[in-house]
Amino acid sequence: MLVVKKFGGSSVANKERIFNVARRCIEDYKAGNKVVVVLSAMGDTTDDLIAKAQDINPNPPKREMDMLLSIGEQESVALMAMAMASLGVPAISLNAWQVPMHTTSVYTASRFKSVETERIFHELDAGKIVIVTGFQGINKYDDITTLGRGGSDTTAVALAATLHADKCEIFTDVDGVYTADPRIVPEAKKLSEISYDEMLELATLGAQVLHNRSVEMAKKYGVTLVVRSSLNESEGTYVREVKNVEKMLVSGVACDKNAARIALIGVKNEPGVAFKIFDVLAKNNINVDMILQSVGRDNTKDISFTVDQTDAADALRVLKADQDRLTIQKFEDEENVAKLSIVGAGMQSNAGVAAKMFEALYDANVNIRMISTSEIRITVLINIDDVDRAMKAVHDKFIPTDD
Amino acid sequence: MLVVKKFGGSSVANKERIFNVARRCIEDYKAGNKVVVVLSAMGDTTDDLIAKAQDINPNPPKREMDMLLSIGEQESVALMAMAMASLGVPAISLNAWQVPMHTTSVYTASRFKSVETERIFHELDAGKIVIVTGFQGINKYDDITTLGRGGSDTTAVALAATLHADKCEIFTDVDGVYTADPRIVPEAKKLSEISYDEMLELATLGAQVLHNRSVEMAKKYGVTLVVRSSLNESEGTYVREVKNVEKMLVSGVACDKNAARIALIGVKNEPGVAFKIFDVLAKNNINVDMILQSVGRDNTKDISFTVDQTDAADALRVLKADQDRLTIQKFEDEENVAKLSIVGAGMQSNAGVAAKMFEALYDANVNIRMISTSEIRITVLINIDDVDRAMKAVHDKFIPTDD
Repeated sequence: MLVVKKFGGSSVANKERIFNVARRCIEDYKAGNKVVVVLSAMGDTTDDLIAKAQDINPNPPKREMDMLLSIGEQESVALMAMAMASLGVPAISLNAWQVPMHTTSVYTASRFKSVETERIFHELDAGKIVIVTGFQGINKYDDITTLGRGGSDTTAVALAATLHADKCEIFTDVDGVYTADPRIVPEAKKLSEISYDEMLELATLGAQVLHNRSVEMAKKYGVTLVVRSSLNESEGTYVREVKNVEKMLVSGVACDKNAARIALIGVKNEPGVAFKIFDVLAKNNINVDMILQSVGRDNTKDISFTVDQTDAADALRVLKADQDRLTIQKFEDEENVAKLSIVGAGMQSNAGVAAKMFEALYDANVNIRMISTSEIRITVLINIDDVDRAMKAVHDKFIPTDD
Repeated sequence: MLVVKKFGGSSVANKERIFNVARRCIEDYKAGNKVVVVLSAMGDTTDDLIAKAQDINPNPPKREMDMLLSIGEQESVALMAMAMASLGVPAISLNAWQVPMHTTSVYTASRFKSVETERIFHELDAGKIVIVTGFQGINKYDDITTLGRGGSDTTAVALAATLHADKCEIFTDVDGVYTADPRIVPEAKKLSEISYDEMLELATLGAQVLHNRSVEMAKKYGVTLVVRSSLNESEGTYVREVKNVEKMLVSGVACDKNAARIALIGVKNEPGVAFKIFDVLAKNNINVDMILQSVGRDNTKDISFTVDQTDAADALRVLKADQDRLTIQKFEDEENVAKLSIVGAGMQSNAGVAAKMFEALYDANVNIRMISTSEIRITVLINIDDVDRAMKAVHDKFIPTDD
C-alpha cells in the first residue's frame, strides 16, 4: 500500500514531537507500506519568518517572500530524515522543487499544475521513506512559490493523487471530524466517514480541520482522505465518496463567530442597484457571504449581507465613499452576530430539515436574523450570545445520542 | 564593470548590518556597475543549525546535513533582496541551485565543477542586483551540497571567474591583509597588494582572512581579489599576480597557536618505518604539518611532528594502539608550542633570509624547536610563551617602519 501522511507545524514543533512523527511513519513502513511524508514548518517558524521580513521591508516583494518562507519546511524535512536515520530507517528529504511539483507563476498564492513522480518512485523503490516539503512548489522561471496558508494539505493531496496513493492521511490535533466543536457541544460525536461535499461545506464554514482547496482536489481526483490525530492511534474520519444508502440527515453542526452584518437601508428600488453595490465590494476584494433583500418604505429596498469581521470596516468605507451613486440612505452594522450551519448530504432527499432546525432554535429561544441555504447546508445568522446554546440545541435535535 | 562582492555572516547578522551591506552594494550599482553579491548565513545561524541537527542525531546523514545547512544562506539572500527593494533598487536572490552552480557529488565538503551564467546575466541585463547564496551548490543527483566552512569565499571566486568579473571583493571585519596580526604587533602595516602564493601561505598559516581554496581558485583563473572591511571605506588589499620588480623580502609574519608537537623516541632505524607511522596517521585523517627526524641512540631514530591541537589525542591513541609494529619505544607530547612563519615572494631570490630570521629570534632569546621551509616561507616551532615577543622581533627585522 502507498500512503501519504501529512503532519502540521505543531506536530513537528520540537525534538520529542519530531520523533513521535518519525515513529508513526516507521510503523507503517515496517508493516510493508511505501510511505511519503509531507511536513509543514516547525511550530511558529513561518510566523517568525514573516515578522523578520516585515521588519526589513513592510511590503516585501512576493517572490522574495516565497524564497524566505520556503526554508521553514526545508528545515523540518531535513531534521525528520535525520530522526528516522537515527532510528535505523533510510529516509530522504526532498524540496518540492526536487520532486518537482510545478505550480502557476504567481507568488505567495500559487496553485499546482503538475507533479512529477520519477524521483519519488525511485527513492521509494530504493526502500526509503520520502519526506517532502509541504506548502511550496516551483514555477516555470525556476523560482520557489508557496501556496498560501494551509497549503501543506494541498501538497499532500496533490502527491496522493499523482502517485495514486491508497490513502492520504492528514494528521491534526483533533482525532477526526466531529458533528460539532466538542469544546462547545460536549456530546459531539466523531464521524467515521463524511462525503467530500459535506467536508467542503464544513471546511468553508470554519471547521478548521482541512484546507478547503485540498478537499476540492481530493474530490476531483478521488483521493481518499483520512483526518487523524497525531497524538493518539484513534481511527479518524474518512473523507470519500460515501456510498451509504442511509446517509445521516445531518453530519455536522458548525459555527463561525467571525461574521459581521451590514445593512444598507432605503436603497432605490430600480434594476442594477444590487449589481453596483456588490461590484464595488468585489473590486475591493471583499468577500460577501449571506445576502438578504427586503422591501423597504416608499419604493425603496433594504439590503443586508454578512462579511468577515476583518473586512467590515473596509466594506463600510468603500460603500460610504460611493453612497450617492449607490443610493444608500442609511447604514447599519453589527459585529455581535454569528453564523450557525448544519451540513448533511441526507437533506437533499429529506423535506422538513429546515423546519426541524428552526424548531430547535425556537425551543431554545434563539432569534434568527438571516437564512441562507445550499443543497446540503442550512445557515442562519443569530446573535453571538446565543450561539453556544443554539449549537447544543440543534445538535441535540439532529445527532442521535449513543445510549 | 562587473563586480562580485562577498559578505560574511557577521556582516549580515542583523537588520542594521543588512542595510549597511545593501547600501554599499547600491553605491556600486548606482555608479553604473553590474553587481553580484554573495552572502553567508546570518551571524551564528550555521552553528545553531548544526546544534539542532546534533540534538536530533549525533551522526546525521551528510546529505540531510547539507539540506539543513543550506537554508541559512537562503534566508540571508531573501532578506537582502527585500532590503534592497525597500531602498528602491531592483534585486533578486538566487539559490546556488538556481544559478546553477554544479559541484561534485560529495556532501558537506563538495567542490565546484562548473557554473552556468545564463540566469545571472539575464537578471543583470534586466537591471537587477543579483544576490547568490554562498557555501553551496547542486550535484548531479539534484541534491543540495555544501562546500565546508569558508566556502562562501570560494563561491564568490567561482562566480567571478565564470562571469569574468573585473574584481572579486571579499568583505571581512579587518580592512585588509596585514604584515602581522595587529593585536600582537601594533606596528603591523596593511599591505596594498600581495601575490596569490604569498596569500596562500598566509591563509594556510592561520591568517584567517581568506579561505585557502578560494585563493587557489583565484590564482588558477586569474581572479583579482580584494580584501576589504565591511565597516569602513578603506581601500583594502589586492591579491593578484604581483608584477613589481622590487618585491618585498617578507610580506607577512604569521603565527599559529593551535599546534601540538609529538615525538616518537627510539624508533628502529630501518626502511619503511616512517612510511608505516605516517600511513597510520593518514588513514585516521590526522593532518601532519612539520616533520623532523634525528638520529637516536643504539641504531634508532627519533621522529617528531606537529599536528593541530585538536588532533593530538587522536594521534597518540592510534599510534599507541600500534606501538609494537611501529617499533616506538617512548612517546613525548607537548601542547605549549606555536608555529611562527615569515612569508615573502622576495625570499626566492634572496639568500640569507633564514639567517636573518634566526638572528632576530636569537636576539629576542627565543629557542627554536623545529624548522620547516618552502620556497616562499620559513616556519619555526617555538615555545608558546615566546610567540608574541618573537613575532614582534621578526616583524621589526623585516618590515620597514614608515618613519
